[in-house]
Amino acid sequence: MSERIAVVEEIMGANDRLAAQNKKRLDEAGLFAINIMASPGAGKTSLIERTVKELAGEYEIAVVDGDVATGIDAERAARAGARAVQINTGGECHLDAVMIQEALDQIDFKTTDLIIIENVGNLICPAGFKLGAHKNVLIASIPEGDDKPYKYPSMYRGVDALVINKIDLRPYVKFDMDYFKHGVETLNPGVLTFPVSCQTGEGLLAWYTWLRTVLG
Amino acid sequence: MSERIAVVEEIMGANDRLAAQNKKRLDEAGLFAINIMASPGAGKTSLIERTVKELAGEYEIAVVDGDVATGIDAERAARAGARAVQINTGGECHLDAVMIQEALDQIDFKTTDLIIIENVGNLICPAGFKLGAHKNVLIASIPEGDDKPYKYPSMYRGVDALVINKIDLRPYVKFDMDYFKHGVETLNPGVLTFPVSCQTGEGLLAWYTWLRTVLG
Repeated sequence: MSERIAVVEEIMGANDRLAAQNKKRLDEAGLFAINIMASPGAGKTSLIERTVKELAGEYEIAVVDGDVATGIDAERAARAGARAVQINTGGECHLDAVMIQEALDQIDFKTTDLIIIENVGNLICPAGFKLGAHKNVLIASIPEGDDKPYKYPSMYRGVDALVINKIDLRPYVKFDMDYFKHGVETLNPGVLTFPVSCQTGEGLLAWYTWLRTVLG
Repeated sequence: MSERIAVVEEIMGANDRLAAQNKKRLDEAGLFAINIMASPGAGKTSLIERTVKELAGEYEIAVVDGDVATGIDAERAARAGARAVQINTGGECHLDAVMIQEALDQIDFKTTDLIIIENVGNLICPAGFKLGAHKNVLIASIPEGDDKPYKYPSMYRGVDALVINKIDLRPYVKFDMDYFKHGVETLNPGVLTFPVSCQTGEGLLAWYTWLRTVLG
């Protein structure tokens, strides 16, 4: 059993080292990268579409799309105006630093300012694999329910910002915002929170403003 | 690389053999087990609460709850009237046959008719691990979006029934039912489908009727 644990730690150590290399490579080229994580259907692709359209003209954006199968999300990102790189994980439930290293090889660093990484739809495993991004963002979704911070603590603990999407659905579902926020605060005190609707556009201005600030 | 693949296959083979043992053990005791899978927040616990309340008095039900952390779901199942067994996976993103074997040890086979297994909220990994259940059920959720069969094909391919939850939210979200159903049909032709709302109760009668039929 201890041998098995040792192997797992070695895999994680190797991933972390490679993530640090990815970050160094980005820093040297003056690129900024954001890793967006969420459950399936919380609105990763919708937020990326909105963001790409908003920031087009100010920043050159590349989107790296991780998916178990298909290029649906990458196609949506490309239609929104980004250059898109598709990673088909072939069953893997998360992106890792090796996949990002290979994706970075497909991106023209000279003509890119911002890389948005869309992780695989999963509230568990992506939390354990650093990619080398400068900011890790989690999207929660109102219809998912208010207990998710309590049930998926690793994901909530490690992020730099939390987008709460689909706030337009609040009148139609049970969602105790105080209970939700208490869970978030316990795991990640003071984390930046952006309540938004990617359908109506409500709340997105604060998200764009934050992005422009961190991008400099 | 080939050695690594061989090891993975051996793990899956061992899991499948243990799943077959779990099923044999259930069959010999005359128990029926259902494995419920879905993304986080699609409504696994809500469907189980409704089902336990509906079938109480007809069947003795035990609920096995798989979760990364906390006993929130097991407590909800217990309040609804089931005996509940909590499996904290400690970070694992799916249940496997070993965890179910250990959970079965906690259940009184003589006084139980039906075991409902609530898998970990995840649309990827649970598809790869047989547990020994008689029926595998997937819950889709309207606000997750209509592209999920295309993006998570393994999960849709392997199930015996598909519950489409939160149909009460259809007026408020974009969801092309024809596109969704085309994806489902391609992967799993003729699969039983139950459009329901666990909030309003709409559509649940057909689900209960099916359960009573398979339970005999």
